[in-house]
Amino acid sequence: MKVTPPYFGAAYYPEAWPVEQIDDDIALMKQAGMNVMRIGEFAWSSMEPAEGAFDFAWLHHVVDKLAAAGIGTILCTPTCTPPAWLAEKYPEILIIDDAGRQIGHGGRRHACPNSPVYRDHCARIVTKTAGEFGQDANLVGWQIDNEVHPHGQPPGRGCFCPVCKQKFRDGLRAKFGTIGKLNAAWGTNLWSQAYQSFDQLHGPVRGAWHHQSLYAAYTLFQGDSYVEFCHQQADILHRLTRQPVGTDMMPTTLVSYERMNRTLDVVQHNHYHDMPNLWQSAMWFDYSRPVKPVPFWNTETSTCWNGSHTANRYRESGFCRANSWIPVALGGEAVLYWLWRSHWSGQELMHGSVVSSAGRPLHMFAEVQEIAAGFKAAADFITRTRPAQPKLAMHLSNWAQTVFESQGIVEGFDYRTRVVESFYHPIIQAQYRLDVIDAAAPLTPYALLVSPYLVSLEEAALRDRLLAWIEAGGTWIAGPWTDVRDLHAAKYRHAPFGSIEDWAGIYCKQQIPGIPRDFAIRWADGTMSRSQLWCDGFELRQSGVESLADYTEGELAGLSAVAARKVGKGRIIVLGTQPDAAALQGIIAHLAKATGVVPVGDASENLLVVPRKGPAGEGQIVVEHEHKPATLTLPRAATDLLTGKSVPAGRVEIEPYGVKVLKY
Amino acid sequence: MKVTPPYFGAAYYPEAWPVEQIDDDIALMKQAGMNVMRIGEFAWSSMEPAEGAFDFAWLHHVVDKLAAAGIGTILCTPTCTPPAWLAEKYPEILIIDDAGRQIGHGGRRHACPNSPVYRDHCARIVTKTAGEFGQDANLVGWQIDNEVHPHGQPPGRGCFCPVCKQKFRDGLRAKFGTIGKLNAAWGTNLWSQAYQSFDQLHGPVRGAWHHQSLYAAYTLFQGDSYVEFCHQQADILHRLTRQPVGTDMMPTTLVSYERMNRTLDVVQHNHYHDMPNLWQSAMWFDYSRPVKPVPFWNTETSTCWNGSHTANRYRESGFCRANSWIPVALGGEAVLYWLWRSHWSGQELMHGSVVSSAGRPLHMFAEVQEIAAGFKAAADFITRTRPAQPKLAMHLSNWAQTVFESQGIVEGFDYRTRVVESFYHPIIQAQYRLDVIDAAAPLTPYALLVSPYLVSLEEAALRDRLLAWIEAGGTWIAGPWTDVRDLHAAKYRHAPFGSIEDWAGIYCKQQIPGIPRDFAIRWADGTMSRSQLWCDGFELRQSGVESLADYTEGELAGLSAVAARKVGKGRIIVLGTQPDAAALQGIIAHLAKATGVVPVGDASENLLVVPRKGPAGEGQIVVEHEHKPATLTLPRAATDLLTGKSVPAGRVEIEPYGVKVLKY
Amino acid sequence: MKVTPPYFGAAYYPEAWPVEQIDDDIALMKQAGMNVMRIGEFAWSSMEPAEGAFDFAWLHHVVDKLAAAGIGTILCTPTCTPPAWLAEKYPEILIIDDAGRQIGHGGRRHACPNSPVYRDHCARIVTKTAGEFGQDANLVGWQIDNEVHPHGQPPGRGCFCPVCKQKFRDGLRAKFGTIGKLNAAWGTNLWSQAYQSFDQLHGPVRGAWHHQSLYAAYTLFQGDSYVEFCHQQADILHRLTRQPVGTDMMPTTLVSYERMNRTLDVVQHNHYHDMPNLWQSAMWFDYSRPVKPVPFWNTETSTCWNGSHTANRYRESGFCRANSWIPVALGGEAVLYWLWRSHWSGQELMHGSVVSSAGRPLHMFAEVQEIAAGFKAAADFITRTRPAQPKLAMHLSNWAQTVFESQGIVEGFDYRTRVVESFYHPIIQAQYRLDVIDAAAPLTPYALLVSPYLVSLEEAALRDRLLAWIEAGGTWIAGPWTDVRDLHAAKYRHAPFGSIEDWAGIYCKQQIPGIPRDFAIRWADGTMSRSQLWCDGFELRQSGVESLADYTEGELAGLSAVAARKVGKGRIIVLGTQPDAAALQGIIAHLAKATGVVPVGDASENLLVVPRKGPAGEGQIVVEHEHKPATLTLPRAATDLLTGKSVPAGRVEIEPYGVKVLKY
Repeated sequence: MKVTPPYFGAAYYPEAWPVEQIDDDIALMKQAGMNVMRIGEFAWSSMEPAEGAFDFAWLHHVVDKLAAAGIGTILCTPTCTPPAWLAEKYPEILIIDDAGRQIGHGGRRHACPNSPVYRDHCARIVTKTAGEFGQDANLVGWQIDNEVHPHGQPPGRGCFCPVCKQKFRDGLRAKFGTIGKLNAAWGTNLWSQAYQSFDQLHGPVRGAWHHQSLYAAYTLFQGDSYVEFCHQQADILHRLTRQPVGTDMMPTTLVSYERMNRTLDVVQHNHYHDMPNLWQSAMWFDYSRPVKPVPFWNTETSTCWNGSHTANRYRESGFCRANSWIPVALGGEAVLYWLWRSHWSGQELMHGSVVSSAGRPLHMFAEVQEIAAGFKAAADFITRTRPAQPKLAMHLSNWAQTVFESQGIVEGFDYRTRVVESFYHPIIQAQYRLDVIDAAAPLTPYALLVSPYLVSLEEAALRDRLLAWIEAGGTWIAGPWTDVRDLHAAKYRHAPFGSIEDWAGIYCKQQIPGIPRDFAIRWADGTMSRSQLWCDGFELRQSGVESLADYTEGELAGLSAVAARKVGKGRIIVLGTQPDAAALQGIIAHLAKATGVVPVGDASENLLVVPRKGPAGEGQIVVEHEHKPATLTLPRAATDLLTGKSVPAGRVEIEPYGVKVLKY
Repeated sequence: MKVTPPYFGAAYYPEAWPVEQIDDDIALMKQAGMNVMRIGEFAWSSMEPAEGAFDFAWLHHVVDKLAAAGIGTILCTPTCTPPAWLAEKYPEILIIDDAGRQIGHGGRRHACPNSPVYRDHCARIVTKTAGEFGQDANLVGWQIDNEVHPHGQPPGRGCFCPVCKQKFRDGLRAKFGTIGKLNAAWGTNLWSQAYQSFDQLHGPVRGAWHHQSLYAAYTLFQGDSYVEFCHQQADILHRLTRQPVGTDMMPTTLVSYERMNRTLDVVQHNHYHDMPNLWQSAMWFDYSRPVKPVPFWNTETSTCWNGSHTANRYRESGFCRANSWIPVALGGEAVLYWLWRSHWSGQELMHGSVVSSAGRPLHMFAEVQEIAAGFKAAADFITRTRPAQPKLAMHLSNWAQTVFESQGIVEGFDYRTRVVESFYHPIIQAQYRLDVIDAAAPLTPYALLVSPYLVSLEEAALRDRLLAWIEAGGTWIAGPWTDVRDLHAAKYRHAPFGSIEDWAGIYCKQQIPGIPRDFAIRWADGTMSRSQLWCDGFELRQSGVESLADYTEGELAGLSAVAARKVGKGRIIVLGTQPDAAALQGIIAHLAKATGVVPVGDASENLLVVPRKGPAGEGQIVVEHEHKPATLTLPRAATDLLTGKSVPAGRVEIEPYGVKVLKY
Repeated sequence: MKVTPPYFGAAYYPEAWPVEQIDDDIALMKQAGMNVMRIGEFAWSSMEPAEGAFDFAWLHHVVDKLAAAGIGTILCTPTCTPPAWLAEKYPEILIIDDAGRQIGHGGRRHACPNSPVYRDHCARIVTKTAGEFGQDANLVGWQIDNEVHPHGQPPGRGCFCPVCKQKFRDGLRAKFGTIGKLNAAWGTNLWSQAYQSFDQLHGPVRGAWHHQSLYAAYTLFQGDSYVEFCHQQADILHRLTRQPVGTDMMPTTLVSYERMNRTLDVVQHNHYHDMPNLWQSAMWFDYSRPVKPVPFWNTETSTCWNGSHTANRYRESGFCRANSWIPVALGGEAVLYWLWRSHWSGQELMHGSVVSSAGRPLHMFAEVQEIAAGFKAAADFITRTRPAQPKLAMHLSNWAQTVFESQGIVEGFDYRTRVVESFYHPIIQAQYRLDVIDAAAPLTPYALLVSPYLVSLEEAALRDRLLAWIEAGGTWIAGPWTDVRDLHAAKYRHAPFGSIEDWAGIYCKQQIPGIPRDFAIRWADGTMSRSQLWCDGFELRQSGVESLADYTEGELAGLSAVAARKVGKGRIIVLGTQPDAAALQGIIAHLAKATGVVPVGDASENLLVVPRKGPAGEGQIVVEHEHKPATLTLPRAATDLLTGKSVPAGRVEIEPYGVKVLKY
């Protein structure tokens, strides 16, 4: 059997069902048009019912049965849910929260990623599983664990067990060498926080008002513990199998996508966006795509509603179609729903699925069939074209998220929400295509780079790389709140910015919070807007710097809100305040000549338009994502591969949640 | 002395006051027209000031003084508040919450119902008290403990002490025999939750995401622990006294009323409904009445405002009258206020009462006197007539409450709120009288049965009993969300329902959450309404099944929302969605011919109308409960026993919170 | 060097910055016009880097450098932030919260004020510091610790360590002698709460429903622990230095201002009021002024925004001016901002300051310079005149706050909010000047005294002192909710009040909560208003008592809402309900003839008008505090010392946040 992309399927939990039911399930999977199932995710206790006693027969049976029906398997390591015998015999593997409570068996993600005992047991089950299935031709890939993330919510997030405590201290000792250097870097003289030894350090807990550097360091440590945890499994899998290995992650930046995926083979992304925010899912796919040269996988998404505790956020007809095509349009090659068949017991009983726990197709089953048919009809175009490489990129930073979490700008500021709503949204509404990149990503592919709230340029030696890129011709839109902290979450002392003033030839004269009051701004073309979020007011100090917008009232009157300057062959634009959508779109349009960044098409702002090109030809995939009618001006006549009908150049109407695969 | 019902009085705490004050109190009680006091509720430390040293002299003095004034006593066992010496010497009796914290002395309900040490001390104080007062002719009854309920809120409700842990495990071991059977019944293969031994089980705690079966099992265990706890006291009292024994419970179904009262003599019910929801109190009396053949007691209610921490929910003039007559109208024989005299120290200082802590009658004292006079004037009618046995019943289930608590239907769903608002309210507004019954109650008295959200038919062998009752002629309105879980809180795997599809000859084609969107429904008579809460869409599959209402839009268009079928001599009506009030009333009216269930009178929907009949004659008691004017069409001329005036047949006006005892 | 008041400066943390930066800072301080810096507040670990190893050289350097520039120092004891080595070596000093969790190093205020080990270390560092600087002529004063207050929030506030537990028990043993007396005073027979020994007592914790007397006693104990803690330091400082000693406190009454300041030399007050509630700051200065005969210090306030975690509550231009002049107008002699230079690391990074962490003046720097110039220009008038002694006083009680915290009147009642909004605000809007006094304060300076919600007259023997003062001619406006509890938070049993009925010749016939419904009131002059908060309805029982206002509806109709009676040469007015602003102003105006209390001027209600008189002449300081235009009728021609211009008598316009120092 050889299953080829696009992969279309769901998460399947055969361990929870009578073995004989598989035939019914497979018949329904075939009806649905699926060609891949993701299994094993939480099945440790079925694979190793007692310590050292392994049972893979049932799993071979499932994989073989699926294969016989032409359905490939994505096999998961089951390490997210250690069995009861493991927690009982080795309670030291259990996470201890910041209140000192051990998180017991009976849920998931309750083992400490740093526990050596847990790691040994994980290594063994992964080794055994890889030994069993590593050469199985029916596997299309591996998933490590599931949605790794630190336990709990800040303040007091992560594990606080003795192993973590020691490892945190050792990590800081290795990083700083002497406690004096930590004190100096963190600035611990305030509040007599200075440490005399690394052994005095502990993680930040609720009920105390801790130091920002401590918060940031602990969050980083906990996130990186999961990177290390997954990489240990990846090493085993890489030794024992040739199928691609990844780990499915949720839309969070607290565990670094970049460091996690560096040594993995395929980016696996889970999301549960619903009707009001479906458009946001595009940002995460634009973030997943540049990480690897190979297509990413959308390993989990909802068919119709969520249901961890209650059935919630029901999505209307058509949603499933749009939701399934967005990742494919944006460069993915796999779409898997969570879940195939609703659970009949345990947690998440109320969750939407493809078929019910009684094996009945849900209301959107025909839509699933239509999606499958579409993937099949357009398979060649999907797999042998790729989205055009954008010349525009936007930064999304794990470190910025970490710092802002304990130290927001103004009340209510949420880093990820602002990035996606205030930057990503206006950009895609104006039909620009972009890569969303980590601070560590190379800049060479891009002509225009936007760095909103990129709190530090010290990540991944970005400061030097960035300047070199600008001098070589790149255009950088910086801020607001960019280059204002170092890698200890501390401020610079010589200026509000690390380098921006120098580079842009400006002097930040005033800094005023953007709420409760805002300030009027006049743009170079005379249009007016209002400040948002934060207000840096600049003086122009060096030759060549110009103001794109000035404040016109209050203490800021006369200062520049947006300054621009040529630097080498490139240029830098510094945002002193959050521009509104029109102003941000205006700035990018204003730079079109210098950057070559232009809209990919003339279309409604609720339409995702993705030009594609490759050996299979050229064209575009368009997806309506706001449940409203849309229009598109098609530049050339094309064939819609989903209907087989030809579409003349010119105005095209797209129905709500409509999808077209338009090949010229 | 022989005090006869109706009993009218209050909770009295003489242990908190100077002994000589009792004469003043009794004089005021006589002015108020009261004939019973409830005492001893929390007085353990006054009864047993040191371990093994008992003092009942003061209590005899109180009981005797009251008796001398013609006032009977309801004597309470004081076990809700163990003395300081008990908690100090035997700290193992204290509840341990799910965070591992021991709940110390200084409040109430802080001892574990399963602690053998606590149980022994309880048995001793109850035995001693019963020995002292068991043959005292001045007692009219006993109350065991006070408002038993598990500690805390979910998740993590109940006690987690070592005794509870062991008892929970032992209970499951006794129930399942082998751990394999528990694993199979609970479906623990998901998330590797499978247990290798009963000793791995622990109660569900905050901070972990536990299995629904575990939540349900622990809640059931904790609730039944209080049943066992109270029954132990009841056994002692039954040995040593002949007065009726009960325990006063609050409007909660988490401790089973049915199992608790099975071996008790009188249902005792506390409630604190206020102006906006006074009508809801009727449901709890309609629930209390069918449990026992003898009249229930309303052991606690508020005169004018609540005040656990602040004076709140003030009730205006007239409320006390309506609130006091509702239980009597519905078949109770006792109304006791909480409390007689406001506390002068300690907790609940701000609570409304009959007289203030300074011994001054509160503003509604004249109303209390009027109520007393009314009870006296109508005593013969009250005690020698009973509410007519309704042919209509509605289920209210402890198990459904337990399951829904950890696994709601949609966000915001609250089982008890929906039952009382969406079912009970429309029913009583249309002037139907009904019994509200536990799943264990016999069905033979009824012609029509409504089972809203009755999550399992496996309670009390209901499935078989129900089918037999239907086949014998009963009409059953099922759902929504009825027969969808078993007694492990798990789903059926063969179908969404256990039996309903078979019985009704339907096939549930679609299931869609009822929020955020709803769907139009057309009823058989052409009227339109909207779906609520949840939408099951049925196909009619068997002969004889008809659709009473069809969905007319969306994915559900054309499917039946309400299906009906004759079954044997009876019939079943399945609600696929929550009907609105008018639709529910319409269904019941539509069934009048088949069931004989008709309104008890022609009256405003804000009027409670209770027909009564018995040796003392025939008539009706009516109570206005929404603080608005009401009208009633009196079928026959009557005498209002409260005024002595005759009332001609025809239209009668009732003032806000007005009460009439109309004897034909 | 001799720095003279008014003191103008900021909090300065040189320990957090490179030593060489001080010259830049001092240059900016001089530009700002400042003459004092407050330093050392949290610098313990810099003063004593290891146990017993002291380093004051850096601090001498700072003090000397400042002095050389003409800037005096307020030196703080650093005890709020014990060093890491102290917490590590002696973990028994750490606070244990009510959940049993030890609060570790890494924040502030984490040591128990009762820990003898902590106290010893505090005594040593204070002794050492005083030894170093006690005779330093460059110091203008001392601050003990910082913003002392019990840990956490109720219920469960304070420390629960073994030392606290024992001290709490010992304190009650010393107070009551026998446990029987405690039981009798607290009324512990309810709920079997009676104690057999003092060793059974523990502090009130979350998760239990505790006794009001226990809550109140523990809150009092914890607050007084901080008084004792500070006094221990004051004793050392008084031995070793002659500069004035104080402790900077926040607007809370849970640590008694009165008992704390009794043995200190200068009242130090911190506040962070912002634009919507700037007027409230006046109450705290009117509260600070009468405590000592010497001018108080405003030790902390914000220049432009707060920022513990995010930049919040930005204040617009002019705020800093008004905010800085209010304390000076009301009798203070020091205004210090928090903080001089924004932190570059650690906590509170986002807080507004005078200069940024990069050393750049913030936008309101010119305003600061203007304030400095104004203080200088008006220095003689500021320091050699004082606000006229008001004949009006209002009570603000620590005990009332303590009692109401666990036992409110109605839902949402907050003692301090109601005092400032319902009493203080109408009074100052009508241009009355007043002292806000503790229950312990002498009454002799006053002709009119208002005691809102003064829950007990037993504080500081007030009952006798008050009656004597009334009989000698004082006029007392009592209530609502005054004289209703004793010093155990218990009620009186003979009447709702301790003495008020006797004194006023009234009988409280009804008491009804003021929400949800209110009642109409007719005043003696025929005007109507509505009851608020609570309704006592009085009968007039003795000769000489008259009703100033009667209820006209509901159960209260015909009863008096406000009763008045001559008592000796004085009179008592009892408020049975909360009057609205106009009614309260009307009562005070009505009493003008009897009390001589009249408005200090004819001015807009948004203008603070403070008449001043002294060796330096006579005049008034006026400050607009609502950011709106104001007018003033100037009785005599004057010179505005801030502009040097003469201002003729008659109508004067004041701009938003405008300030004038008008010397006749």
